[in-house]
Amino acid sequence: MTVAEIAKKAKESSFLLGALPGAIKNRALQAMADALRAHASEILSANRQDLEAAQEAVTAGTMKSSLFERLKLSPEKLETVIRGISDLITLPDPVGKVLLQTALDTDLILTKVSCPIGLLGVIFEARPDVIPQIAALAVKSGNAAVLKGGKEAACTNTSLMKVLQQALEQIDGYPKNSLHLIHTREEAAEMLRLDKYFDLIIPRGSNRLIAYVKENTKIAVLGHADGVCHIYVAPSADLEKARKICIDAKTQYPSACNTLETLLLDEHLPQTFQKTLLDSLLASGVEIYGGPDVGALVQVAGEVTDWHTEYGDKKLSVKIVKNVTEAVTHINRFGSHHTDCILTRDAQEAKIFMDLVDSAGVYQNVSTRFADGYRYGFGAEVGISTGKTHARGPVGLEGLTIYKYKLIGDGQIVADYVGENAKPFLHKPVSEEK
Amino acid sequence: MTVAEIAKKAKESSFLLGALPGAIKNRALQAMADALRAHASEILSANRQDLEAAQEAVTAGTMKSSLFERLKLSPEKLETVIRGISDLITLPDPVGKVLLQTALDTDLILTKVSCPIGLLGVIFEARPDVIPQIAALAVKSGNAAVLKGGKEAACTNTSLMKVLQQALEQIDGYPKNSLHLIHTREEAAEMLRLDKYFDLIIPRGSNRLIAYVKENTKIAVLGHADGVCHIYVAPSADLEKARKICIDAKTQYPSACNTLETLLLDEHLPQTFQKTLLDSLLASGVEIYGGPDVGALVQVAGEVTDWHTEYGDKKLSVKIVKNVTEAVTHINRFGSHHTDCILTRDAQEAKIFMDLVDSAGVYQNVSTRFADGYRYGFGAEVGISTGKTHARGPVGLEGLTIYKYKLIGDGQIVADYVGENAKPFLHKPVSEEK
Repeated sequence: MTVAEIAKKAKESSFLLGALPGAIKNRALQAMADALRAHASEILSANRQDLEAAQEAVTAGTMKSSLFERLKLSPEKLETVIRGISDLITLPDPVGKVLLQTALDTDLILTKVSCPIGLLGVIFEARPDVIPQIAALAVKSGNAAVLKGGKEAACTNTSLMKVLQQALEQIDGYPKNSLHLIHTREEAAEMLRLDKYFDLIIPRGSNRLIAYVKENTKIAVLGHADGVCHIYVAPSADLEKARKICIDAKTQYPSACNTLETLLLDEHLPQTFQKTLLDSLLASGVEIYGGPDVGALVQVAGEVTDWHTEYGDKKLSVKIVKNVTEAVTHINRFGSHHTDCILTRDAQEAKIFMDLVDSAGVYQNVSTRFADGYRYGFGAEVGISTGKTHARGPVGLEGLTIYKYKLIGDGQIVADYVGENAKPFLHKPVSEEK
Repeated sequence: MTVAEIAKKAKESSFLLGALPGAIKNRALQAMADALRAHASEILSANRQDLEAAQEAVTAGTMKSSLFERLKLSPEKLETVIRGISDLITLPDPVGKVLLQTALDTDLILTKVSCPIGLLGVIFEARPDVIPQIAALAVKSGNAAVLKGGKEAACTNTSLMKVLQQALEQIDGYPKNSLHLIHTREEAAEMLRLDKYFDLIIPRGSNRLIAYVKENTKIAVLGHADGVCHIYVAPSADLEKARKICIDAKTQYPSACNTLETLLLDEHLPQTFQKTLLDSLLASGVEIYGGPDVGALVQVAGEVTDWHTEYGDKKLSVKIVKNVTEAVTHINRFGSHHTDCILTRDAQEAKIFMDLVDSAGVYQNVSTRFADGYRYGFGAEVGISTGKTHARGPVGLEGLTIYKYKLIGDGQIVADYVGENAKPFLHKPVSEEK
């Protein structure tokens, strides 16, 4: 089948998924979890095939060892994914929620109801555990999905998708053709052109992948290109907490998108505070980049050539700023609107920062690494959005829904509500007890 | 100033608008309403200049008379706009609403707060009354905006914008440069390329304008390309109501986007019912297009060559369908996901239709013409969206907001919440009384 044929079928399936009772979706999730457990050895053996080929590529120098790591699917990783699916079963159905109900007039009731978005196109790189995660989120939120994985994980991906598709086929009343896997770059390119079928594209992977997707589609894209997160250390910050937080934000998982990339130190902080903080970072293996004022405090690895740099590594840009206003201006100008933090004990200063920084996450006295759907209590996430429409920050089930307006009347026509003797609208909220 | 310079300033202004108290925004709205009233004669005289030039164009045959009508700004129209602004003052502030509040742990509180989108780019055609409407919605929702109007209304637009900008400048604490007007097609094209500044583009006008905008920008676009609305008359429909509703939906304002374009008649309806309904439409001046089965009932003007046709005129496509399933399939395939209606007295049939039709508005026994922000009780609308992300259907203040996550802690780091001795998350909702 061509991607267009796959997408057409998946889109048709999506119309049915929107009306599916939550109980059937939960049965489907249970079947997916059971099937992954039952076929674990088959899946892991497919993964070993991918890993063997990858090992050769690493040896030949054509694959980075970090990519190899992300390709690996251990029994523990698979079990974590399965438990994640079980968790989704316990969450309330995100579809069919009444978001607003208004009587426009007697017997003319407007109801805003949450519904699935429709057909999702998901493009991801190496990590094969993305398949069951995304598939489960799509099932729970009533969306159809076409997934495109990396060719390095082709065996694992194919095995996982077969198991999941078979599980869904067992479920009475679950629409056919709601979940698909495509493989090649050409197929992905075709997907991006199919705006008549796809409602949302979710790229998960490198900045390059996401930039490519945005450049090549008219379909809405959910994701983030960069994660250039900041911590601003205000004059009243607590040194001990600042040390702990900065080290966590920079070193706990340096390649994550919510990692600290630029540290802004207020010039009113005592020099000993500034030096102690930077020394702690150096001692944790962090390289520091900054100007002569920073160089006067500690040894720097070089100047900062671009303040919009995502190192994804144990490297850090450091700048001395005049005050909270300069910090906010710097962040709004050079940041990526992902997650930015102020360390302070001054409530007024904190409020300015929290109100004026234009980011999906604005933090006070806490590590930027908390920006994550699981940590936020969303159960799981399809990704983190730095866009400013639809969904922002970690996106869970709610971000995979939209709404429709249902209007139920008894023969009303607009002509009666306009002109000289127009009937007035009631616009009265319908009480939730109803 | 170039559009890039204007956009840069407006974007900077938008950061401040996000933190503006509702009282200041309401003072700004009051000043706008007062200024429009005080300068009404100046604005109407500018409009007369545009109308004189337009009259010549109509006479020369280079402008349609319908465009001329939409260009006209009467004292009554201006007063309606001013009253709309006053209405906005009474609505609650859409910014700063707490949408979710969760204790991730003791002293680690996550708050999801509504905030403005940022910088809006609005492109509209002839109607100058769009300027104060959109400006007022932008002010109330805390967004900055750059507006591009049609050149036919250049004098009126310039006059309106001057009055509004001066009104905003009087308001203490209202950020400068939050509202701009641009004029030429080239400036609009430049705006569409400025994805680094603009967060949302709202085109209001012809299908051609909207298609052009979607084709030429990477920025999120809110709007609808087509309005191909359907009414499906089920076997149990009430004839008298069906006649009233179909005539209203087709003829009450034929060029509106929520007008009926395709009528689907169930084949189980008595022939007399079908014929009477179509005769009523003919008697209201509607031309009917359809196949031989429709031609057997009444005189048709021709076959339907494309079921995705928006006539915007007193013309109607008519099809005989087998049942509700065929009606739903036809609508999902050929419709524009705008607003579609079932006429029925059968609750089960209605439920199928309401659940399975994938449109922003799904209606039961009521005219499609109700699809409108004012009629829905939203105060006003920036437009109607047929997209399936961010906002759908009539879009009012809420559709001009998004949210940010504020996380306030006391030194917490992620390292404490992972691994062997991981602290558990609480994920406990914070009660609203707090």
